[in-house]
Amino acid sequence: MSHSTLTSEIPSDEAIAREATLDDIETVAARLGLAPEDIERYGSNKAKLTQDAVDTARERGRNGSLVLVTGITPTPKGEGKTVISVGLAQGLSHLGENVAVAVREPSLGPVFGIKGGAAGGGYSQVLPMEDINLHFTGDIHALTAAHNLVSAMLDAHVHHGNELDIDVDRISWTRSLDVNDRALRETVVGLGGSVNGPPREDGFGITAASELMAVLCLASDLADLRRRVGRIVVASDRDGAPVTVDDIGATGAVSALLRDALRPNLVQTIEGVPAFVHGGPFANIAHGTNTLVADDVGLAYTDYLVTEAGFGADLGAEKFLDIVAREGAAPETVVVVATVRGLKRHGLDMWPADFDVLAKPDPDAVRDGLPNLFHHVNTIRDFGLPVVVAVNRFPDDTDAEVDAILDACANREIPAAVSTAHAEGGPGAAELAELVREQVESGQANLRPTYELDDSLREKITAVATRVYGAADVTFSKQAEKDLGRLAEQGFDSLPVCLSKTPYSLSDDASNTGVPTDWTLHVRELYPAAGAGFVVALTGDVMTMPGLPAHPAALDIDVDDDGTIHGLF
Amino acid sequence: MSHSTLTSEIPSDEAIAREATLDDIETVAARLGLAPEDIERYGSNKAKLTQDAVDTARERGRNGSLVLVTGITPTPKGEGKTVISVGLAQGLSHLGENVAVAVREPSLGPVFGIKGGAAGGGYSQVLPMEDINLHFTGDIHALTAAHNLVSAMLDAHVHHGNELDIDVDRISWTRSLDVNDRALRETVVGLGGSVNGPPREDGFGITAASELMAVLCLASDLADLRRRVGRIVVASDRDGAPVTVDDIGATGAVSALLRDALRPNLVQTIEGVPAFVHGGPFANIAHGTNTLVADDVGLAYTDYLVTEAGFGADLGAEKFLDIVAREGAAPETVVVVATVRGLKRHGLDMWPADFDVLAKPDPDAVRDGLPNLFHHVNTIRDFGLPVVVAVNRFPDDTDAEVDAILDACANREIPAAVSTAHAEGGPGAAELAELVREQVESGQANLRPTYELDDSLREKITAVATRVYGAADVTFSKQAEKDLGRLAEQGFDSLPVCLSKTPYSLSDDASNTGVPTDWTLHVRELYPAAGAGFVVALTGDVMTMPGLPAHPAALDIDVDDDGTIHGLF
Repeated sequence: MSHSTLTSEIPSDEAIAREATLDDIETVAARLGLAPEDIERYGSNKAKLTQDAVDTARERGRNGSLVLVTGITPTPKGEGKTVISVGLAQGLSHLGENVAVAVREPSLGPVFGIKGGAAGGGYSQVLPMEDINLHFTGDIHALTAAHNLVSAMLDAHVHHGNELDIDVDRISWTRSLDVNDRALRETVVGLGGSVNGPPREDGFGITAASELMAVLCLASDLADLRRRVGRIVVASDRDGAPVTVDDIGATGAVSALLRDALRPNLVQTIEGVPAFVHGGPFANIAHGTNTLVADDVGLAYTDYLVTEAGFGADLGAEKFLDIVAREGAAPETVVVVATVRGLKRHGLDMWPADFDVLAKPDPDAVRDGLPNLFHHVNTIRDFGLPVVVAVNRFPDDTDAEVDAILDACANREIPAAVSTAHAEGGPGAAELAELVREQVESGQANLRPTYELDDSLREKITAVATRVYGAADVTFSKQAEKDLGRLAEQGFDSLPVCLSKTPYSLSDDASNTGVPTDWTLHVRELYPAAGAGFVVALTGDVMTMPGLPAHPAALDIDVDDDGTIHGLF
Repeated sequence: MSHSTLTSEIPSDEAIAREATLDDIETVAARLGLAPEDIERYGSNKAKLTQDAVDTARERGRNGSLVLVTGITPTPKGEGKTVISVGLAQGLSHLGENVAVAVREPSLGPVFGIKGGAAGGGYSQVLPMEDINLHFTGDIHALTAAHNLVSAMLDAHVHHGNELDIDVDRISWTRSLDVNDRALRETVVGLGGSVNGPPREDGFGITAASELMAVLCLASDLADLRRRVGRIVVASDRDGAPVTVDDIGATGAVSALLRDALRPNLVQTIEGVPAFVHGGPFANIAHGTNTLVADDVGLAYTDYLVTEAGFGADLGAEKFLDIVAREGAAPETVVVVATVRGLKRHGLDMWPADFDVLAKPDPDAVRDGLPNLFHHVNTIRDFGLPVVVAVNRFPDDTDAEVDAILDACANREIPAAVSTAHAEGGPGAAELAELVREQVESGQANLRPTYELDDSLREKITAVATRVYGAADVTFSKQAEKDLGRLAEQGFDSLPVCLSKTPYSLSDDASNTGVPTDWTLHVRELYPAAGAGFVVALTGDVMTMPGLPAHPAALDIDVDDDGTIHGLF
């Protein structure tokens, strides 16, 4: 492809999706060696694997090589990790490899909020787009229902005599909805007198932020899911002891509600590559990657499985490598996605991001932003894993800007390739796929986590902060110090840690671009995600319920009389 | 069958369901004359009809005869209308008729609350039970998501400047969840300062009570759904003018979310009779029957479609005949379900119902309760429709009790039959099916609604109260008088009326059993359900969000490691 075609018009994601011819899902399953009876169809182009197929995959074991896609410190519009993940899988397929891609399920909140649909884009998208972005196979709805059943059973327990002596001021289990709704962030429930009460402060998070979502994504099977659900801490009693989902008797009903959601969903990319779209946890208070079950199934039936971690390598990849990989497969190569736009933001030290300015050619700004990329590359290398840089080329990027990245990578002997997978599909990621295959075949991967599980929680947090984020120091608030003591007492100190931090800076301050130095990470509060199996450390404020902007994407979404949906893309 | 077997043990619904062999859903579809490409499969035993199949049905028109199943004034445990509906369909099939049954989708709230699963029972149930009772094809989840999107867009509009000048104290659109949760009945939202607010009083109803559910059930097609969604009134502005879903710009996104939910779900009864399980609106503030689309499709592809209306004939059947039948098919015969237990409650003038006492043989109490049955029979006859009484026989009912009902019906020349469909399936409803077929074939049906649409709202309400409920008079509160004036001004007075009243008495007082006389119906408040297309008149308090009891059904629900779900039945 000549660079001149890059500035030509690419049709909208919606137009591309509508033109695409989809294979019947049985044909897609056959590419994985799955028979028609191994899948439960949801129409022509979606399926869930049957329980038998999942069990068989587990018996076969992980045969394929896992490739993890992560990125630089992003702008709020993202650097296109999903496009690169889908494109890379298509690129590997183009090279003749047996490959699948595994990505997260989109949440309705962002679909109707700012971001719009989320399943890749251009000629590197996952289809059928409307279904995946709306209800899909119902997994997220199942989580919403299960989450709020726990809430209802908890409040009903208190209402009917409170035998467990739950402290109503220390109920940590808020409610959940899959919507962006700031009015639900802080609420009072149980009003209207003793027939409804007691009244208490409460709030709603988006379903992706529910611990049940993290549990679904980390459970190895239904028995493991049930165990994890049962140990989720929902409140404290008046002696300060944790009250769990098991204690309130909700484990069985919740697990029944999540039974089908635990089986991976199979769809296809626009080029017919099998795609597992399954699970979608938050990448700040949770680990931010698709389900372990989907990874296990993908690795059982393919030679390459490409998967994606949320936000930059400091957040998504760190969590994948320090939390998920302890329970599942370790990646054999990691792709770090960079964009001209994202690097310019760092080079220009810009916050908030002004996308009009970022659209202007500025190779010097790109060069000035490169330290952020190299920091993330070094992070991955410190984990003992080979790295490939993928430059996600946008139509208006100039050659000078792109070359600035490629030249700097060449100077540092970092394998790097341009991807035009958005505009061209798999062939646009063929060079990237070649580099990834070389790294995988080199067999150099040797994962070294940032910390050992028997380090103290304080040591684990300090290791992530200093070695991954580049902090000079870590401080703990009074509350955090109390939390550390209580968590150790309650036996949670052998868990890995999940740090919640802004994704827009390596530091805990979104306006601090590039590679901040001489800064201190402030840990505000810690709590156990005992079901997910990690301790969450909050730094700064965490918003678990987004809001709608003045002009939400929902205003532009519509459906024709014949059922054609517009405006999702 | 001899009556002696009736007292023998019938296996649990769960055990019966697990023993059943289901036909592939394509085989079931073929019984309706539908080809494999007319359905979108959800696994082996569930499907949605394709849009093409729905359109074709509409072109074919309503060929079959509609049979409506209603009942006496019930106890809180219900009189088994669903069992009779499913059993009657199986009975008609047993007689060689081409038949289907259409019932409502169960709501998760009751499944985890008091009632447990709801899709018939014994040998007259709809399968697969676990799927239908949990997430099924996601229709109710879609409604929950759509409902709360409207809420989020409404509050976001107010938050971002309130261009429509919405009066935050007059937002009538509460939020929705498919759960029994009394703590959500009365809430305050928007707390936490101006970043989240403004704060305001709010509440949650169960999704079945959402006007969107009523809209889904009354829409003739997607274009009609979109129109109805758009005209739903969600608030008043500061001048008192209605603010609609159209005004806040949510119509398109909501309709897109409900696109798939509008297509009927096809499953089967335990005897393989095609069953449409679609929609599930509340039967007090809404009309309480499955979707019009399912009825239309069923009548296009069968000779008999059996459908069910909620609660007693005063509520469900009245609403079906005065609201639904104006937009869809009129029944050619109505079945009134009576039970020995339910009639004894009236004969003993008992409230609340003591089911231990009601289990004791007492033919005199049954006889004393019969006026309630005959009142409902007369109501249906006043509508111009033939009636058949179905005695839903329970294992412990005595012959003397059952004969008391049959003899009284014979004396009044009311066709009546005992059904043992719960214990015996279709053959147990064969006599009932014969009587129903005779009445349909008699061609006597000539529907006369209770009121004309150009009567005033006051006249319509008075007609229902005096002619259907048997009230001596109707009074309107000051608020109701104001509402009548405002509704007339706003042009809503040509809509039918939907009266919300306790189902446990013909009157507005649940403790008033039998056939109350000399009583006055008090109308407290009226509001437009402009999307559904009726005016709701509230009498007494209406609970749109149930609560969980001290020992909810959820405590006994569990799932095995292999995925088998227990305790739903």
